[in-house]
Amino acid sequence: MSALKLYHASGSPNARRVRIFIAEKNLDIELVAVDLGTQQQFSDSYRAINPRSMVPALVLEDGTAISEVPAIWRYLEERYPAPALLGTTPEEKALVAMWERRAELDGFIPVMEAVRNSVPGLKGRALAGPHAYEQIPALAERSKARVAHFFADLDLRLADVVFVAGASFSAADITALAAVDFATRALNHAIGHSQHNLLRWYDAVCARPSATA
Amino acid sequence: MSALKLYHASGSPNARRVRIFIAEKNLDIELVAVDLGTQQQFSDSYRAINPRSMVPALVLEDGTAISEVPAIWRYLEERYPAPALLGTTPEEKALVAMWERRAELDGFIPVMEAVRNSVPGLKGRALAGPHAYEQIPALAERSKARVAHFFADLDLRLADVVFVAGASFSAADITALAAVDFATRALNHAIGHSQHNLLRWYDAVCARPSATA
Repeated sequence: MSALKLYHASGSPNARRVRIFIAEKNLDIELVAVDLGTQQQFSDSYRAINPRSMVPALVLEDGTAISEVPAIWRYLEERYPAPALLGTTPEEKALVAMWERRAELDGFIPVMEAVRNSVPGLKGRALAGPHAYEQIPALAERSKARVAHFFADLDLRLADVVFVAGASFSAADITALAAVDFATRALNHAIGHSQHNLLRWYDAVCARPSATA
Repeated sequence: MSALKLYHASGSPNARRVRIFIAEKNLDIELVAVDLGTQQQFSDSYRAINPRSMVPALVLEDGTAISEVPAIWRYLEERYPAPALLGTTPEEKALVAMWERRAELDGFIPVMEAVRNSVPGLKGRALAGPHAYEQIPALAERSKARVAHFFADLDLRLADVVFVAGASFSAADITALAAVDFATRALNHAIGHSQHNLLRWYDAVCARPSATA
């Protein structure tokens, strides 16, 4: 086992993005649970690790704390390059970054936004982080419409390619999977029966051992 | 001059993030203007380059089109490593990614969101991209409150470090600068007289030749 520690929460879709990445690389990294139910993310000890009070965060041997999913991914990819999940050539690296970001901006973030702006338990906490913001019901509705567009656009994309960023499984698939699963679980928005490309891709990524991470 | 082409618009804060990056690396890349005033970003020819109908996009020698600012940056950094703007060691790369992302999520995106959800000329176009969404006035107000928090939080951060991600100028400074300048120009939200650290940093980054890009 490396001496790295990943602070996470089992129900956090962002933490799952890192756990799947770690599983794909077959790394042995200690998981430290942060209890969001008792708001442990706002404790002084966790705020010393991530002042934005969000999971996940990766703590290195020297105590350096890295938060934000793409930043943690970048560290792990640099330190453990194989198998590559962020691309290998300059062009591939850029295309994975592009498709992963589209999956995040058009899919993952709208799902999170719809949930945070509508769930009763998150009143006054419409954005994760240190500052408190009220929910905006109209935003939740707009986000749900965006999620529907995301599913349809991704289905079209997957008519042309095996995986989200092209021929190889990558971080873009991880973000898309986390978005689709959380939309299904928290918004009751599942893949449509006619979205055959998306269904084919979903079955393929769910068959990978990392999907249970 | 390389045979790369950057499709951009002079008034686009996202395009500016790439232009500054190119200037810092002293690269000679052809700029191709996309006229947002006549909605050229929705033309078939531009949608073939970026189906999300957004600038900027970088087109490579083989015709591959890369959109999304961090993806374009990644390509340019891989191809032209010096001077490094995304970090050098694995730890630095992760920390630049983290601080750049915080500047984007907490600063740049709220500024854009406040503008898009309030400017009369963007009615029905509250989000860039191929899908049309109505403006949400309550979201514009929330975003303006977030921008105020961003300025205050960045001022605190810059009490400890010379540049946003640490000792060296990086992509994190570029995103923060683009956010601060667009907040001032489009939201009339300037740096406060008491935000001495932010003012010191702003003077330093604006003194670099790249700031006019």
